[in-house]
Amino acid sequence: MGEPAERAPLASERLDSLVAVLDLVRAGAAATRPELGRHSGLGRTVIAQRVAELMEHGLVGDGALGPSTGGRAPRQLTFRADAGHVLVAELGATALNVALADLSGHLLTQYRERNDIAAGPERTLDRVEALFDRILAERPDAADLLWGIGVGVPGPVEFATGRPIAPPIMPGWDDYPVRDRLATRYRVSTWVDNEVNTMALGEYRAGLAKGVDDVVYVKIGTGIGAGLISGGRLHRGGQGCAGDVGHVAVVDDTDVVCRCGNVGCLEALAGGGALAREGTRAAREGRSGYLAEVLASGRPINGSDISTAARHGDPVSVELLARSGRLIGTTLATVVNFYNPSLIVIGGQVANAGDVLLAAIRQVVYRRSLPLATRDLRIVHSALGDRAGLMGAAYMVIDELFSRQHLPLWIDAGSPRGRTDIPAALVATGGR
Amino acid sequence: MGEPAERAPLASERLDSLVAVLDLVRAGAAATRPELGRHSGLGRTVIAQRVAELMEHGLVGDGALGPSTGGRAPRQLTFRADAGHVLVAELGATALNVALADLSGHLLTQYRERNDIAAGPERTLDRVEALFDRILAERPDAADLLWGIGVGVPGPVEFATGRPIAPPIMPGWDDYPVRDRLATRYRVSTWVDNEVNTMALGEYRAGLAKGVDDVVYVKIGTGIGAGLISGGRLHRGGQGCAGDVGHVAVVDDTDVVCRCGNVGCLEALAGGGALAREGTRAAREGRSGYLAEVLASGRPINGSDISTAARHGDPVSVELLARSGRLIGTTLATVVNFYNPSLIVIGGQVANAGDVLLAAIRQVVYRRSLPLATRDLRIVHSALGDRAGLMGAAYMVIDELFSRQHLPLWIDAGSPRGRTDIPAALVATGGR
Repeated sequence: MGEPAERAPLASERLDSLVAVLDLVRAGAAATRPELGRHSGLGRTVIAQRVAELMEHGLVGDGALGPSTGGRAPRQLTFRADAGHVLVAELGATALNVALADLSGHLLTQYRERNDIAAGPERTLDRVEALFDRILAERPDAADLLWGIGVGVPGPVEFATGRPIAPPIMPGWDDYPVRDRLATRYRVSTWVDNEVNTMALGEYRAGLAKGVDDVVYVKIGTGIGAGLISGGRLHRGGQGCAGDVGHVAVVDDTDVVCRCGNVGCLEALAGGGALAREGTRAAREGRSGYLAEVLASGRPINGSDISTAARHGDPVSVELLARSGRLIGTTLATVVNFYNPSLIVIGGQVANAGDVLLAAIRQVVYRRSLPLATRDLRIVHSALGDRAGLMGAAYMVIDELFSRQHLPLWIDAGSPRGRTDIPAALVATGGR
Repeated sequence: MGEPAERAPLASERLDSLVAVLDLVRAGAAATRPELGRHSGLGRTVIAQRVAELMEHGLVGDGALGPSTGGRAPRQLTFRADAGHVLVAELGATALNVALADLSGHLLTQYRERNDIAAGPERTLDRVEALFDRILAERPDAADLLWGIGVGVPGPVEFATGRPIAPPIMPGWDDYPVRDRLATRYRVSTWVDNEVNTMALGEYRAGLAKGVDDVVYVKIGTGIGAGLISGGRLHRGGQGCAGDVGHVAVVDDTDVVCRCGNVGCLEALAGGGALAREGTRAAREGRSGYLAEVLASGRPINGSDISTAARHGDPVSVELLARSGRLIGTTLATVVNFYNPSLIVIGGQVANAGDVLLAAIRQVVYRRSLPLATRDLRIVHSALGDRAGLMGAAYMVIDELFSRQHLPLWIDAGSPRGRTDIPAALVATGGR
């Protein structure tokens, strides 16, 4: 019996070079064939073949002439970000955001509406689907090129199955098949993750964390949570619940009970709920004119009100935020010693407070962490703000589709449209 | 001008399949050519070529006939672990261990002697070199096949350069060129890392953490430190000092000053030094007959004495260890929430205490961490014990040499012998 010829379409070696070339073009790291050769270490023939293949699939296009280095000027290559589209949704505790994104993670159309996540998956996903349908109706071009769906939820997710697992603030969602429901309805592969992970991924791929390999993203809203990047990849942990800093015990002598049932949790003492509670008390006791006015307007005070009040110079709110910052800083000091990130990005509604919160966090971290761990540590506000989650959800989908594991599942068909069976890799690679 | 032919020796595609086949054989995951095909997805021709190439280089050998699945029984392949040798050293605070290892990380010859790391690099490395020379003199076969050197030190290391950076208990070692000194003397590439990282790597490659992707290794000796595995790779952090849990503040109302200068650090209250201090006090105050006898014998009490005393039922020592365990557990509860490991391996001299310490750690972690994070969490004693660091140092070298980045630097010469210029990858892959 003779040796069968290698099957070209799925051969591992062809795939590696294809993924390498595609990654370089879509990252903008190499724009011409000679540059691709220098960055990838691949030979001219292989580069030429892979570029031709990517052009044939409509993923790469010819652009302007690039700079010449002596001979004929090489042709610039461009990533065709409009070759496909992705629908993304970010489900928060009190609002949902949905958007259409291109293959570069740019948000093209976006809708937001109030939603109580505790109303359960049926009601919430009905709304998500209504908004997805609306986007697809408005953009028939996108409907024809829908390649995948990405969803962030405010709780732990079993990434491989796309089901929330024991999410504390999402009653009714435990083990609900979010992924399967959307994949079946829209006939595209779907990925679901904890929103702090999609936010961290957004910051890593398009925000201030771009190119930084060890990052902690901290979301400070009603709850407090973190998303971790380790060596350029999301660290999800064994159960997919890494980053849960909200329930670290920070104070012993308190009777404030956290929604998790424990006493003294960071979130219960420093999150948006704690700020609202203390701000309401201050308003009622006549200690804050600004907050008393909010209360007089007939609606309850929330965490964002404290941020706004602080920006307007309300001393009570400034002190409340500083206290929150010190408690958060105490926990982050431990995180810095343990994880040694190069960058901490602070995001979330309460974090929009401005500099009071950030200054207090920095002060404690720099005092209480080891000098070596803080030598080059930067602690910054998110520059992406509330786009981080949606953009990260888009990158989650795009990185999975273009990964070495999943590209062979669809590349020979030219597109992953209509495929619902592309699995979730256990560790998203951040496109590397 | 015609296209030059692809240069076979360095082609990226050939390299990927070579590394894939070698990894499968040396991990024992595939023992025959058909198994290699199933595990790698590579075709028969490529497998046959790569196996032939590895045999030619002496890395793979033919073994017995494997089980037949119908046709002719396939030939078993074996990894030739004796094709090369590695020298390893583990420098502790008070002792140094050196060994010769084969390419499977097995320790072949081992020496241990007392050494005060604070005596500085000249004296310590003189002793390491004397023991290395002795091993090479006793094993001329190893001297002819020396492929690399691996060293673990008790402090942070800039992995890329192999220099300790601001190590708190290693006066005189800051920025000392450990790597360059040994590489120059023995004319082989050398890697240096924090010993907790080499220990974590040893546990991941050969201990209870084998095959577990998210692991925290905690060393409890005079100091307390941790090594982290994230998604199967060492997480070193931005400055290479990740895992420093010893200087987390655990108690506010104390006047115990830590060697780092802060007050209330975990290490100062729960490490071997704290146990020795409290044990000595108990002996002097007549509260522990067992420890009083140690003191009467004329030598100072150390952390291991407390462990031994506890195993003999000394109630004071049992309570001291339980208290240490509770403090360590408090810090690990935060680590579990933040990092969500599937496994915590406890090692180090004090950890040999037996079950008292481990039980106290478990109790606090399971009470204070989130239920989801502890659902499948195991907390176990190291089974490798004090071999973890040396074995891990060997794997560090072997994994670097056989990595996709570094294999092409030497494979066509047949061996990395005599090369001193193989660089350190920023993230060791744990052989994956």
